[in-house]
Amino acid sequence: MSANTFGKIFRVTTYGESHGKALGCIIDGCPPQLELSPDDIQFELNRRKPGQSDVTTQRKEDDEVEILSGVFEGKTLGTPIGLIIFNADQKSKDYSNIKDVFRPNHADITYQAKYGHRDYRGGGRSSARETAMRVAAGAIAKKYLNSEGITVDGYVTQIGSISTDSINIDDAKNNKYFFADASKLKDLDTMFAELIEEGNSVGAKLGVRVSNCPVGLGEPVFDKLDADLAKAIMSINAVKSVSIGNVENILELKGSEIRDEISKDGFKSNNSGGILGGISNGDLIELEFIIKPTSSIKAKGQTINAAGKEVEVEVTGRHDPCIGIRAVPIAEAMVYLVIMDHVLRNQAQCGKIDQSIPFKR
Amino acid sequence: MSANTFGKIFRVTTYGESHGKALGCIIDGCPPQLELSPDDIQFELNRRKPGQSDVTTQRKEDDEVEILSGVFEGKTLGTPIGLIIFNADQKSKDYSNIKDVFRPNHADITYQAKYGHRDYRGGGRSSARETAMRVAAGAIAKKYLNSEGITVDGYVTQIGSISTDSINIDDAKNNKYFFADASKLKDLDTMFAELIEEGNSVGAKLGVRVSNCPVGLGEPVFDKLDADLAKAIMSINAVKSVSIGNVENILELKGSEIRDEISKDGFKSNNSGGILGGISNGDLIELEFIIKPTSSIKAKGQTINAAGKEVEVEVTGRHDPCIGIRAVPIAEAMVYLVIMDHVLRNQAQCGKIDQSIPFKR
Amino acid sequence: MSANTFGKIFRVTTYGESHGKALGCIIDGCPPQLELSPDDIQFELNRRKPGQSDVTTQRKEDDEVEILSGVFEGKTLGTPIGLIIFNADQKSKDYSNIKDVFRPNHADITYQAKYGHRDYRGGGRSSARETAMRVAAGAIAKKYLNSEGITVDGYVTQIGSISTDSINIDDAKNNKYFFADASKLKDLDTMFAELIEEGNSVGAKLGVRVSNCPVGLGEPVFDKLDADLAKAIMSINAVKSVSIGNVENILELKGSEIRDEISKDGFKSNNSGGILGGISNGDLIELEFIIKPTSSIKAKGQTINAAGKEVEVEVTGRHDPCIGIRAVPIAEAMVYLVIMDHVLRNQAQCGKIDQSIPFKR
Amino acid sequence: MSANTFGKIFRVTTYGESHGKALGCIIDGCPPQLELSPDDIQFELNRRKPGQSDVTTQRKEDDEVEILSGVFEGKTLGTPIGLIIFNADQKSKDYSNIKDVFRPNHADITYQAKYGHRDYRGGGRSSARETAMRVAAGAIAKKYLNSEGITVDGYVTQIGSISTDSINIDDAKNNKYFFADASKLKDLDTMFAELIEEGNSVGAKLGVRVSNCPVGLGEPVFDKLDADLAKAIMSINAVKSVSIGNVENILELKGSEIRDEISKDGFKSNNSGGILGGISNGDLIELEFIIKPTSSIKAKGQTINAAGKEVEVEVTGRHDPCIGIRAVPIAEAMVYLVIMDHVLRNQAQCGKIDQSIPFKR
Repeated sequence: MSANTFGKIFRVTTYGESHGKALGCIIDGCPPQLELSPDDIQFELNRRKPGQSDVTTQRKEDDEVEILSGVFEGKTLGTPIGLIIFNADQKSKDYSNIKDVFRPNHADITYQAKYGHRDYRGGGRSSARETAMRVAAGAIAKKYLNSEGITVDGYVTQIGSISTDSINIDDAKNNKYFFADASKLKDLDTMFAELIEEGNSVGAKLGVRVSNCPVGLGEPVFDKLDADLAKAIMSINAVKSVSIGNVENILELKGSEIRDEISKDGFKSNNSGGILGGISNGDLIELEFIIKPTSSIKAKGQTINAAGKEVEVEVTGRHDPCIGIRAVPIAEAMVYLVIMDHVLRNQAQCGKIDQSIPFKR
Repeated sequence: MSANTFGKIFRVTTYGESHGKALGCIIDGCPPQLELSPDDIQFELNRRKPGQSDVTTQRKEDDEVEILSGVFEGKTLGTPIGLIIFNADQKSKDYSNIKDVFRPNHADITYQAKYGHRDYRGGGRSSARETAMRVAAGAIAKKYLNSEGITVDGYVTQIGSISTDSINIDDAKNNKYFFADASKLKDLDTMFAELIEEGNSVGAKLGVRVSNCPVGLGEPVFDKLDADLAKAIMSINAVKSVSIGNVENILELKGSEIRDEISKDGFKSNNSGGILGGISNGDLIELEFIIKPTSSIKAKGQTINAAGKEVEVEVTGRHDPCIGIRAVPIAEAMVYLVIMDHVLRNQAQCGKIDQSIPFKR
Repeated sequence: MSANTFGKIFRVTTYGESHGKALGCIIDGCPPQLELSPDDIQFELNRRKPGQSDVTTQRKEDDEVEILSGVFEGKTLGTPIGLIIFNADQKSKDYSNIKDVFRPNHADITYQAKYGHRDYRGGGRSSARETAMRVAAGAIAKKYLNSEGITVDGYVTQIGSISTDSINIDDAKNNKYFFADASKLKDLDTMFAELIEEGNSVGAKLGVRVSNCPVGLGEPVFDKLDADLAKAIMSINAVKSVSIGNVENILELKGSEIRDEISKDGFKSNNSGGILGGISNGDLIELEFIIKPTSSIKAKGQTINAAGKEVEVEVTGRHDPCIGIRAVPIAEAMVYLVIMDHVLRNQAQCGKIDQSIPFKR
Repeated sequence: MSANTFGKIFRVTTYGESHGKALGCIIDGCPPQLELSPDDIQFELNRRKPGQSDVTTQRKEDDEVEILSGVFEGKTLGTPIGLIIFNADQKSKDYSNIKDVFRPNHADITYQAKYGHRDYRGGGRSSARETAMRVAAGAIAKKYLNSEGITVDGYVTQIGSISTDSINIDDAKNNKYFFADASKLKDLDTMFAELIEEGNSVGAKLGVRVSNCPVGLGEPVFDKLDADLAKAIMSINAVKSVSIGNVENILELKGSEIRDEISKDGFKSNNSGGILGGISNGDLIELEFIIKPTSSIKAKGQTINAAGKEVEVEVTGRHDPCIGIRAVPIAEAMVYLVIMDHVLRNQAQCGKIDQSIPFKR
């Protein structure tokens, strides 16, 4: 049972190989009468696309999105929204060096084993290229949720050994590293220059915050809001770890120190990260995750080929010294999709309940 | 859209409030002709149940499971398996002190807000009591998978500030803390004595390993094996963080250092944790997660009541100084459920493919 | 992928073999704060249960339902509702005559082939005994929908060759045949006496009407309201045919004659059966279906045994001369479940839309 | 919860309005390594497309399908297959006459009520134009199933009052009416000439047969094979009735007459239509369904406009005198999709069972 669908009510189904004809998706279950234009989607795609600065891969992807259905006279119809991005430049390149070779740290070997057949060009379906469609779909959820006052912000807090002194979300919006501490930009420039020179890569730590999330989102027992967020984030290529709330010194603190007491003005702290028992409590939702170093690097590595023979492989071309950077709009999109789905799920079952907590927020 | 179902093909649906009449579940999609007895399930429930040692809550739960359907003459029928545990002791206790009070760090306030109505007795549906049914269902998956040679082992690697020097899974099977380093038992005894005295709690770090996992489990793009594992683990009460593979110093290492190179004898390291591109690669699957300190503690805390008035609350009775300990069989069960579901999912789509990789394992 | 779950948002999952320990179900996704008592459910079960008159099987089933979870202080919690009926009398009987024999027209042979293992006692899971849980779950949907003014009525319009002259729903509520024309009761009595004497059976034709169904239920393209109703009805044991709206002379009429024209006071006819393009139009929903003659009859029949040898089989005991009669509450329950699920589905996506049509109803 | 997805494991999700930019679909869960070319799909689309004879609408739809993903070097990858058909001619036409008018017997009024917004051009999403994607997806299922020896054949048995004397499937493949009795072709020609002249329409009765269906397909309790077939067929535009097996005189026959007895050579009759207890028994699966007369006809009809005012409407242009004819490839496609999904579902749960019945087929 293949699984290229995300969400239960606001459902996104995607397709597309890295170097195939096109990438696309269908968003089913979007509420009708939402104002939506291609520009709303293109704006987010532009934030994701590579080749925008000297610190990401130079591959040119125009990523021009078209809305094929589900929108009429500028508003959603309630019917499925079809989106497509044609791959501009999918031909000619010579893939003979990786056709029968399993690049280390890549999904080449597992796709080959699972399906007995794979599109080796640029990783095919396993390429992070598919995340373009997550961003496109997320842009629609964003349009809806922003109109309800809910916003999601992603940012980078550590790249390799360089970490923020303090988190400033505005900083993250104004530099090419999405880094939440502008005082570290020079250090980052130096590190990236070295990585590019060396043909090597590093990992990153990122954060995402949801502001103004309504109370009551999340479903017991299995589809807790934090469980669904963890899955959404972990499904992004190269993510290895995800946490909700304050886990910095969670093993050093005692129960009496870490619990969020409640006053008549609200929670006195937010160690829980805005979720209690899997249900949003109205506070800021905060999550963190870690992305491993880019797998496609110039440095030669040992592997085997399809015949089981040992060979050396070298992945040529310009690659991201840190793919973590580009995950910011992708993670935001995934969080928007989770929140959107849970808003509709909550509306389905509890639409007539007055969902409030006995203090002003 | 409520979500008390886990899995797509091997599907577990549970019900039951902490102090209601009974807990139960339905396992739908289990392959026919699996030998199964109540003892197979009871054995795992006994590992989970509280009151077994002086370091867990003294609440007595007999947790005697009955198989109501789906098994005939000792073998599964392929029809839904109904399981039930009656709550032995659900009456009489006086809950007036928490009826209208929201205990800090508990789901009392979010359930009340979401549904406008809650079973306040022992947390109702939000209580970890529901995990008994996860363990029961997991025991069936375990029976099937063990017969295929696949095994899952959970263990504790840190409680509060006390951590293992090295991980020894056999140790974990032989002490009441499920702790993977027997040399730390005396230290743990001392710490628990203090915590019980103090009426306080600490968090814990746990690990789970899957041995002999076949190649090819996991579905691109959204139901990657690691994404589904992350969700499964994060859906357990009090879990705040989950990671796959080696994340210890992932931000310090470079791409060339962390990638798992491949020789003709197999992967030369296992930083990936047995999963590449969301699909199992046949190596040991390794994950870690962190559980926050028990929320129900004796120490008084500030909160509000249903009228929004500030009050102090004190949760009486004996509680777990570290609920993390009891999560071991629960986490194992959830991992068994994920692997089982993916074995059947893979069989559905790729049943006729020879799924192998070109080296001996 | 087994399928003992019905519904997408209001989801019912059932278990239980005919002669196992118990039958049960879980209703997940029920809105919170619905008043619900065991009596609400028991009332409907009593309408279904056999042994109530001399024209249905004399098997005694007490069918006493218990609510195990999801209801607290008389109101639903929003958490899963567990229901159970213990099978009073599941022992002792001698099944040696059908243990290895495939009764004609029964699922014995297909269950054996599919699973390689079956509970031969009374048909096991394939017995219509499982429909008790459909009725129990339907009673909850009914409670909710009736409070919104929506009602569902089932009735019998033909048994064997005896059919109604005109349909009178009140008649159907007041006779043991659920027959919608009281003038035919004497004829039915005569026919049933003969059938019982003969140990034979006949089929029946039934109708179901939904009154006050809101406009807008049903989802394009695949989950059209009529498509979901057809599936719901066809999933009932022994149903062979289902139709929506006026199909009596649909092949004789031309497009200009059968279309429902619209005036400012509403539709001028209702040949469509209340559904246009798969979406309810606010008019009376009308469907009809046909149930084949009871398969379990005294008359000897030829079959084979598990070894492939030809044998004669005779199903002893009292059976229903026409199982169609007992399908009335079952069909009502299934229609309630479909409508309930679609009410919530519609609320999920279109909750904020004013769904009205420009005429008074 | 919108529902533009069909199937549980072999899942088809479609999008597209009648006069939008494009129609498309994603097929997720297709087994890898199936040989597939655009021609396989185009062949079936050509059977469906209008304008092929003088008895169907003259609207020109080129319906040229492109495979955008999921196929590499001529074989399926196991990843989602994206298909697209661009609408050649979607502009310019003047829709002012139906923009604010609800055509009788159409979904105009229900879409408007449900979503508060609709694409009025040619019916938008409610147009039978969407069935092109059902046929395209069905062609992939067909390719797979045919290679396993399973075939599906559709045919017409009655148009208006003209019905077959006997059913000859070969006849149906060789005339523009898909009519299963060549001796009636002249009568049909006469009737169609009159209908076109008159601008009116008639309904039709169709049949579908599945040959060589394996034993064991279908899932108790709710997803019985016949229940899923009924839903699949009823979800096709304009279908009002569906039946499985012999229902011709089912109300006249007694249980002893209609049951299919079993000999050592197999079933002695096939009144059940190849399905027992919701599970295929290996015999020919036979179903029938009825399609109402085309709604779009020249004859003027009374209706209301968006303001609730009564108006007359006349649908201009050439339309199908009997849309039933064009449903043959659509119904075949839907049946292929159901069988395909159930083949994989059965493989998921029962993959290791020897599914056979104790007689030669």
